[in-house]
Amino acid sequence: MSVAVSDLFFRVRESKPLVHQITNFVTVNDCANATLAIGGSPVMTSSPREVEDMVKLADALVLNFGTIDDKALEAMEIAGKMANSLNTPVILDPVGVGATSYRTEQVAELLKKVTFQIIRGNASEIHRLMGGDIVTRGVDSGELAISNAELAARAANKLNSVVVVSGAKDAVSDGKNTSIIDNGNPLLTSVTGTGCMATALIGTFSGVTDNFYAAAVAGISTMSISGELAAAKLQKDEGTGTFRVRLIDAISRIDKEIWINEVKLYEEVSN
Amino acid sequence: MSVAVSDLFFRVRESKPLVHQITNFVTVNDCANATLAIGGSPVMTSSPREVEDMVKLADALVLNFGTIDDKALEAMEIAGKMANSLNTPVILDPVGVGATSYRTEQVAELLKKVTFQIIRGNASEIHRLMGGDIVTRGVDSGELAISNAELAARAANKLNSVVVVSGAKDAVSDGKNTSIIDNGNPLLTSVTGTGCMATALIGTFSGVTDNFYAAAVAGISTMSISGELAAAKLQKDEGTGTFRVRLIDAISRIDKEIWINEVKLYEEVSN
Amino acid sequence: MSVAVSDLFFRVRESKPLVHQITNFVTVNDCANATLAIGGSPVMTSSPREVEDMVKLADALVLNFGTIDDKALEAMEIAGKMANSLNTPVILDPVGVGATSYRTEQVAELLKKVTFQIIRGNASEIHRLMGGDIVTRGVDSGELAISNAELAARAANKLNSVVVVSGAKDAVSDGKNTSIIDNGNPLLTSVTGTGCMATALIGTFSGVTDNFYAAAVAGISTMSISGELAAAKLQKDEGTGTFRVRLIDAISRIDKEIWINEVKLYEEVSN
Repeated sequence: MSVAVSDLFFRVRESKPLVHQITNFVTVNDCANATLAIGGSPVMTSSPREVEDMVKLADALVLNFGTIDDKALEAMEIAGKMANSLNTPVILDPVGVGATSYRTEQVAELLKKVTFQIIRGNASEIHRLMGGDIVTRGVDSGELAISNAELAARAANKLNSVVVVSGAKDAVSDGKNTSIIDNGNPLLTSVTGTGCMATALIGTFSGVTDNFYAAAVAGISTMSISGELAAAKLQKDEGTGTFRVRLIDAISRIDKEIWINEVKLYEEVSN
Repeated sequence: MSVAVSDLFFRVRESKPLVHQITNFVTVNDCANATLAIGGSPVMTSSPREVEDMVKLADALVLNFGTIDDKALEAMEIAGKMANSLNTPVILDPVGVGATSYRTEQVAELLKKVTFQIIRGNASEIHRLMGGDIVTRGVDSGELAISNAELAARAANKLNSVVVVSGAKDAVSDGKNTSIIDNGNPLLTSVTGTGCMATALIGTFSGVTDNFYAAAVAGISTMSISGELAAAKLQKDEGTGTFRVRLIDAISRIDKEIWINEVKLYEEVSN
Repeated sequence: MSVAVSDLFFRVRESKPLVHQITNFVTVNDCANATLAIGGSPVMTSSPREVEDMVKLADALVLNFGTIDDKALEAMEIAGKMANSLNTPVILDPVGVGATSYRTEQVAELLKKVTFQIIRGNASEIHRLMGGDIVTRGVDSGELAISNAELAARAANKLNSVVVVSGAKDAVSDGKNTSIIDNGNPLLTSVTGTGCMATALIGTFSGVTDNFYAAAVAGISTMSISGELAAAKLQKDEGTGTFRVRLIDAISRIDKEIWINEVKLYEEVSN
């Protein structure tokens, strides 16, 4: 796993995958900058009138539920089906699913119509995708009785996708193999968009490999390591504004060597 | 007043109020980061299909007129009425009211349908809300013949709300008591979103107290003090980009001690 | 040319032109901050219900195709026609034209309905505006067989507008005179919005002069010089996050003296 992952950094910067993202208007700029920082090329158009054309040019498609409305959902369905037909990987970020019935119903609809190669959310969001009943408060919360690793493995089997559960420890599973990434820093929850950016990074890596499990590990570990590196530099008169700038700095600097040096990755084979 | 205000910093960080914001697409990311920096939890959804559900989870609702359109106004009405029925505080930021007849008419409509606990704007915007006739040029201007304190007091009585008039000196009034905050820095007008972020902070504080006057003073003074602290650190080869980062740094670091140390607050009882 | 350009910095900061921008939701915040940094006053409203009123107050109008949809196009047409009738300069940024047929068709429609004083794009986008057939991949790419200077001159004649082609060397032409600006840094392609911000700066300068050629040179050279200055300061443990902050710093600090000192401007008279 580690070898497959560590090779992706060079590959992304060399081939500059085009990552089409239909995402929310809160963190869209952050997602574009994170995609550029890791070496990808972002395009964020979401008009139903042109997403079909755009996804034909893309190496990966990211669908993010942050601020969905009927028009965005229409665009997601069109783009998702086209990506599926072209074997272009589609990544889902079910932001805030569980917070409103609209979100919960619409994501269930989309899961019927579009096949996702990778899904990333926090424990509460992934739990709700599986039909659980924990209420999400805001977009960043949710504690469950099972570990992120166990949740990721169960969800991967049920949803038939690579699943990333992000949290204090991130977990990535394809249903058989599960990786736990023990990097990160609490400050990652003090700036908006770190979850969305992690999904953008996963999407970018999935644009250069068919190994979606490795792409998911690369993306989520890049965000958690970058959070750690950004926090380590913070002076005592600095705060979350500077942390956010350094987070993008770290994403733009991470490479094979830094990743191997910093990652705390544990793998387990379940069943 | 000072005691009531200074206690709010700890309370916000302890209870992490969920602040639902239906706001503009220019500064929405800044508002989310300001809310997180002071200790709140932002959610920015604005689809008419789900705002009613979302506001049920929220501790405060902020309605910002920056880039209104018919859909946003529909969402604001739905969310505002629901918040009123739940006694959840609703805060209005009438950005640019007076610049177009659409804005001026729509805010008048909304004021009939939704009760606002706090309203924040610059002198020109607040004057227009009261039916005045000064033309606003852009979203940041407007000089009037009366002081911000007098305008805030009159507006509070007329609009039956706590009113914040921000400017070189900020004024907060409930119609009887008026506070003047003599903090701030001209650089606050050189980055976009400082007014919107001030309103987001006011909304966040209003999520942890029924004393909306104290919440308004806490929010607007946090922005003005943070502007002062950010400007004080600026080196001579730095500019408005760095100022903006340090502004969020300062918001994320302000607490009871810093606030008491820095605030220049004058109170007057009118009538 | 140099004298006409160098005087614009002071003039912008003195008269604070109101720049109405109907732009994309990815870089709208960056465009507002760039406009403020150079001394203008941005307003980004894009509702068809109010753009006509807003453009009456504006000193310049910028139309940016980054994330067009039918509603934005309706607003662009209304605002563009009103600006034309008032002799307010209109600036076009045809982001991503050529990537989808929707974009290519809609920009052709808009060119029939609205007269543009200045158009800025990369080589691929400008080529497509002239009816060329190179496929744009993403929004930042495109290599052509002719130089940017030649392309700008041809496009200016064909489109009857001042044309800016940005790239490693930027070119500005009114069809007779062509300026080449040999400033810039590759890092400008590593953060989103530098093209959009360049157009916002051009729009801001066009709000204080009838010499649109000078305004275009001032705007594009400000972005390229700022990229150079921001990159020069970058420490080896910093990355694209810090670069982006310093870019805005540099825009907020540039003035006549810095510009004269830094600009590498070559002029040629064609035909």
